Amino acid sequence: MRLGVLTGGGDCPGLNAVLRALVRRGVSELGYEFVGVQNGYEGLILPNLTMPLGLDEVRGIHQKGGTILGTSNKADPFAWPVKEDGKLVTRDVSDVVLQRARDLKLDGLVCIGGDGTLTMAHKMAERGLKVVGCPKTIDNDLSGTDQTFGFDTAVGVISEAIDRLHTTAEAHQRVMVVEIMGRNAGFLTLEGGLAGGADFILIPEQPYDVDHIVARLTEMWETKKFAIVAISEGAFPTGGRQAVVEEANTVPGRGVVRLGGSGKVLADLLAPRLEAELRVTVLGHLQRGGTPSPADRVLASLYGAMVLDLVRDEKWDHMVCLRDGKLGFSPLGESRKERHVDLGSDKVRLAKSMGISFGA
Amino acid sequence: MRLGVLTGGGDCPGLNAVLRALVRRGVSELGYEFVGVQNGYEGLILPNLTMPLGLDEVRGIHQKGGTILGTSNKADPFAWPVKEDGKLVTRDVSDVVLQRARDLKLDGLVCIGGDGTLTMAHKMAERGLKVVGCPKTIDNDLSGTDQTFGFDTAVGVISEAIDRLHTTAEAHQRVMVVEIMGRNAGFLTLEGGLAGGADFILIPEQPYDVDHIVARLTEMWETKKFAIVAISEGAFPTGGRQAVVEEANTVPGRGVVRLGGSGKVLADLLAPRLEAELRVTVLGHLQRGGTPSPADRVLASLYGAMVLDLVRDEKWDHMVCLRDGKLGFSPLGESRKERHVDLGSDKVRLAKSMGISFGA
Amino acid sequence: MRLGVLTGGGDCPGLNAVLRALVRRGVSELGYEFVGVQNGYEGLILPNLTMPLGLDEVRGIHQKGGTILGTSNKADPFAWPVKEDGKLVTRDVSDVVLQRARDLKLDGLVCIGGDGTLTMAHKMAERGLKVVGCPKTIDNDLSGTDQTFGFDTAVGVISEAIDRLHTTAEAHQRVMVVEIMGRNAGFLTLEGGLAGGADFILIPEQPYDVDHIVARLTEMWETKKFAIVAISEGAFPTGGRQAVVEEANTVPGRGVVRLGGSGKVLADLLAPRLEAELRVTVLGHLQRGGTPSPADRVLASLYGAMVLDLVRDEKWDHMVCLRDGKLGFSPLGESRKERHVDLGSDKVRLAKSMGISFGA
Amino acid sequence: MRLGVLTGGGDCPGLNAVLRALVRRGVSELGYEFVGVQNGYEGLILPNLTMPLGLDEVRGIHQKGGTILGTSNKADPFAWPVKEDGKLVTRDVSDVVLQRARDLKLDGLVCIGGDGTLTMAHKMAERGLKVVGCPKTIDNDLSGTDQTFGFDTAVGVISEAIDRLHTTAEAHQRVMVVEIMGRNAGFLTLEGGLAGGADFILIPEQPYDVDHIVARLTEMWETKKFAIVAISEGAFPTGGRQAVVEEANTVPGRGVVRLGGSGKVLADLLAPRLEAELRVTVLGHLQRGGTPSPADRVLASLYGAMVLDLVRDEKWDHMVCLRDGKLGFSPLGESRKERHVDLGSDKVRLAKSMGISFGA
Repeated sequence: MRLGVLTGGGDCPGLNAVLRALVRRGVSELGYEFVGVQNGYEGLILPNLTMPLGLDEVRGIHQKGGTILGTSNKADPFAWPVKEDGKLVTRDVSDVVLQRARDLKLDGLVCIGGDGTLTMAHKMAERGLKVVGCPKTIDNDLSGTDQTFGFDTAVGVISEAIDRLHTTAEAHQRVMVVEIMGRNAGFLTLEGGLAGGADFILIPEQPYDVDHIVARLTEMWETKKFAIVAISEGAFPTGGRQAVVEEANTVPGRGVVRLGGSGKVLADLLAPRLEAELRVTVLGHLQRGGTPSPADRVLASLYGAMVLDLVRDEKWDHMVCLRDGKLGFSPLGESRKERHVDLGSDKVRLAKSMGISFGA
Repeated sequence: MRLGVLTGGGDCPGLNAVLRALVRRGVSELGYEFVGVQNGYEGLILPNLTMPLGLDEVRGIHQKGGTILGTSNKADPFAWPVKEDGKLVTRDVSDVVLQRARDLKLDGLVCIGGDGTLTMAHKMAERGLKVVGCPKTIDNDLSGTDQTFGFDTAVGVISEAIDRLHTTAEAHQRVMVVEIMGRNAGFLTLEGGLAGGADFILIPEQPYDVDHIVARLTEMWETKKFAIVAISEGAFPTGGRQAVVEEANTVPGRGVVRLGGSGKVLADLLAPRLEAELRVTVLGHLQRGGTPSPADRVLASLYGAMVLDLVRDEKWDHMVCLRDGKLGFSPLGESRKERHVDLGSDKVRLAKSMGISFGA
Repeated sequence: MRLGVLTGGGDCPGLNAVLRALVRRGVSELGYEFVGVQNGYEGLILPNLTMPLGLDEVRGIHQKGGTILGTSNKADPFAWPVKEDGKLVTRDVSDVVLQRARDLKLDGLVCIGGDGTLTMAHKMAERGLKVVGCPKTIDNDLSGTDQTFGFDTAVGVISEAIDRLHTTAEAHQRVMVVEIMGRNAGFLTLEGGLAGGADFILIPEQPYDVDHIVARLTEMWETKKFAIVAISEGAFPTGGRQAVVEEANTVPGRGVVRLGGSGKVLADLLAPRLEAELRVTVLGHLQRGGTPSPADRVLASLYGAMVLDLVRDEKWDHMVCLRDGKLGFSPLGESRKERHVDLGSDKVRLAKSMGISFGA
Repeated sequence: MRLGVLTGGGDCPGLNAVLRALVRRGVSELGYEFVGVQNGYEGLILPNLTMPLGLDEVRGIHQKGGTILGTSNKADPFAWPVKEDGKLVTRDVSDVVLQRARDLKLDGLVCIGGDGTLTMAHKMAERGLKVVGCPKTIDNDLSGTDQTFGFDTAVGVISEAIDRLHTTAEAHQRVMVVEIMGRNAGFLTLEGGLAGGADFILIPEQPYDVDHIVARLTEMWETKKFAIVAISEGAFPTGGRQAVVEEANTVPGRGVVRLGGSGKVLADLLAPRLEAELRVTVLGHLQRGGTPSPADRVLASLYGAMVLDLVRDEKWDHMVCLRDGKLGFSPLGESRKERHVDLGSDKVRLAKSMGISFGA
């Protein structure tokens, strides 16, 4: 059995641990052979983007962030950008992918990635490619699996950042706003905010009310003279998401470089109404990189080894998942709608009971 | 409502986060008042061992290991050591505890601790004390709850230690043995060993075979010239636990001070049969202390806030727990037998499939 | 001897370690008594801003960032802001400070702070107050002392951040720009960039040339397809500091909230000229807070204990310092001009020899 | 110019950063070529122990502990162990080394190691080999240079360990003894103990008096009921080093595996005389491995680049060093006697003034 392996979408701590476990099991237990496909699907569209993937390549990489295979946010076999007559259009190049897989003598392809990557994998399966999948999403917003690797590591970065901001907030009696990954789901902000001891947890699932926040800050100031506000990238004030979006679009220069969105929007709304000083910190890419946490290494390793159960049993067009604390499988074609923080959950209720405000 | 709070048994990262959440919710949402009982049940037996426990005392302590209340491994209201006629005997002083609780005008008592502490709590409940419980065990070996705080932090220490030993093992071509907490259950060794990339995971649930280990090391040496062996304190060779126990009893000096047990036993068994150098590291108390991990802070906080649901609803003689990923309650009197690593689980199967040896 | 103690200026890891060492030595060896003055000089101008400062208050605080005394960037006895006729003016309130010191029965005052705080201390000394000083500057740009606490901790944050960005840069083939503290001096960027393995180190001492950077990136892309650019807040392109300043002034909203300056300026200059994607991360306040590094704890402790040599020997109007690796003293009134990175030093020469670009 | 490179002696965080800087400068600035010699001098005595050492091999390794070249504590060209007539004898094989260097077409050899490795390098220089050296010693006890890489990283491990033990000590009211590297010099114990806030710092330079320690503990117990004792491997009680040595020799089993020495000796001496519980932790190999600290990465990188100044200028038989804060050179043949903690230094005086006991 000769398998291609690719990693697609944004990078995420634990990808290398998946690769290591996959290769270790494949080579030593099952006698499989692996071909590393570089930069996501790009490596099956453009030439010369494969690399060896054996025991030597994966030794010790479980400690390393990123992915030794490289990744791509953009390479899509069904919408591949090409220039025609000077214009950028997209083309279906899935035939190229099929041909490249044959040229590389692949008996199957392991796709490790988020919803985009897995959906493309399913569509390639429909076109006849033998694929299996391994889910990846750092913000844990993928239904079809309870937990994904990368999340715990990111929570660690967020929690440590809040710890750091805490000491400055207290020493200078400031409001520190920290902007956290999560466009549509607030899991990272909720978990990181709880771990770090944030006073406010503002998430996309619950539009925040500026009046409420100002009132709460004023009240808090009577006992302690600082506050930490944890806010998701995708959080927005009541009255609509519009304000955040407009802000994002009107940053001058309009180049590639935008720094922070929701944190700055909130701070600009609060600043005129508070005496206390405000500071915004945008964690951004710090949340994606670095050594995976132990829990993420374990989960990623289990996924990596488990995905070969699918190959061994020829359960193509499926992915591994974790449901109710148990490893299992689900069809790649099954709809994976976005998961959201349940505002009625015990976790949210208990967070509120401790005096944490959700902004409304 | 005026509640006493005590922490009993070995210390464990997250205890302070429990206390903080408990007090924050109690004071701000429910209007309760708290009395800190020091050094476990000792604070309800001896005089002058209480302290204030309000918002000021718990501010920022979720980041701190240990317990601001102090703890005790030994104080048992039903077997309290007293000297009589120059001899040390134990007495039932549960009457003293009841009287002290009345003197302190306690409407209830929150007991945070392991199996010992919780069993005493149940027995005090049978004697008429209004108690609720919060489970604690760093090695996750308590049935009645799926997960306990402290475990994730300890795995972090173990995993980081293995990472450190790895570089030296490789540079010097050595076998590094690392002895990990867990007298009866191998959860910490399994999880830490998987995260750290150990080559051997030796746990109490599976007696190890020295011949097998020697053979495996010899085989491994052909491809890479070092190995990491993660071993639980309670792991022992086939032929019985006896050898480990005897070793422990024959350490010279016989004072209080014993360093390592199972790691040294293994190393002494292997040393004459290997050419490679061996080194033993005993993690010991490093696994208990320090800042709790984010996941442990969150779990401990949820437990701390949740335990007041029990008080509010007058569900005395119960404890909080986590089952199948959901927060809930169970009776304190329910038998809490020890949990063990399931050798037939997917986790163990997949670990083996990656080439990790369990020693037999 | 009864001493007041204050911390002034921006917070900095190690301040609490200074306080702990000061109080431990003062109380246990010399029999002194201490009064904590809160929020810098504010605590000697406004009423009710003092706190006890004894062995209990300082226990274990060497591990904590921030300052238990609080600090202020603004409180200046010689330019204290007051509202008169609805207008904000500044007044000399040094008489108030003298009177408050008498009221508090202080025999002396220990001022821990940066150039601003120390200059005010000297001016108070000229007005008759008995003061001694302890220097503090996180970016190590204070002449009069070779090394200051806080710097090593900040380098740790920067280096870890670069490690994290590294994995994402490599996985996505991006240019990652990381903006680092240092308005006038590039020490943190140089040290953090060297430790983190940055490809570019852009500092205020050396205006950067965009053409050079583009050329260098193009050249680098032939062997590895990612780059890390470490840039000081105060770095600017050739042609003048003007561009950075203007950018800073034209951020829309013009509120209190500005995110990043030099990093965004650079990225906007580079973006139109590169095919590779760019991302900017602004470390900001993450560099100030959190647990001090071991080296900073030691240096801060030595300073804290040493400053009492000055008090004991009645060497008022002096501060402690470290020169040529030796602890010593220097007059507070001595001019402390800013220190800068020496572009002709061995450190810079060797950094360049390893292929690191300084932007020109 | 074609240079061999070897690393000898115990491994030490920073070795890989030396290699990376050396190769980066050598290849990109000077056009040199490198041959990796494996396992110290062994790679110049036995066949097939060389590896490529170019830009690809050193990419990103500054973050990694250990040494990618491997090392050896034992390989000595002037005392190489061989079996003759069934007996193990040592032979001078320096001729073999010279011949291997010629076979490999080496124009010079870079030796990175401690006193042993550097002394051998000097003796090889006397036999005609062109060698330059880079000093390495984790415990900073090498005269001829003020500071060595690895030390700061080890202090970080020690300080973090003491932080962890602190919380348990406090929660359980125990005396925690932590045994730290340093057979002959107490630098690591002094620095780690100061950073971690130890109550006792026991080092080889100052024999400790058990009566004094007991008295001090009793006195301390009146205010706080726990203590941390930091003790060097080589520390011993007054009355002589003999006790420690005998203990070391009488450990049963007498196999390779000895756990702890000085810590256990102290604990056995204290245990019968204290009511409080004692626990011993031996840090051992945890102090050697893992990611180098930022300061160590910088120092190691500067050394690695700087050593090529020696090669370029044909200053053979010299090593790089740091003296009075300045990078420089010194002859390899110069006597490098051991450095010791100066008991009369300001650092020790100030530590004592804060209430830290040195055991006598």
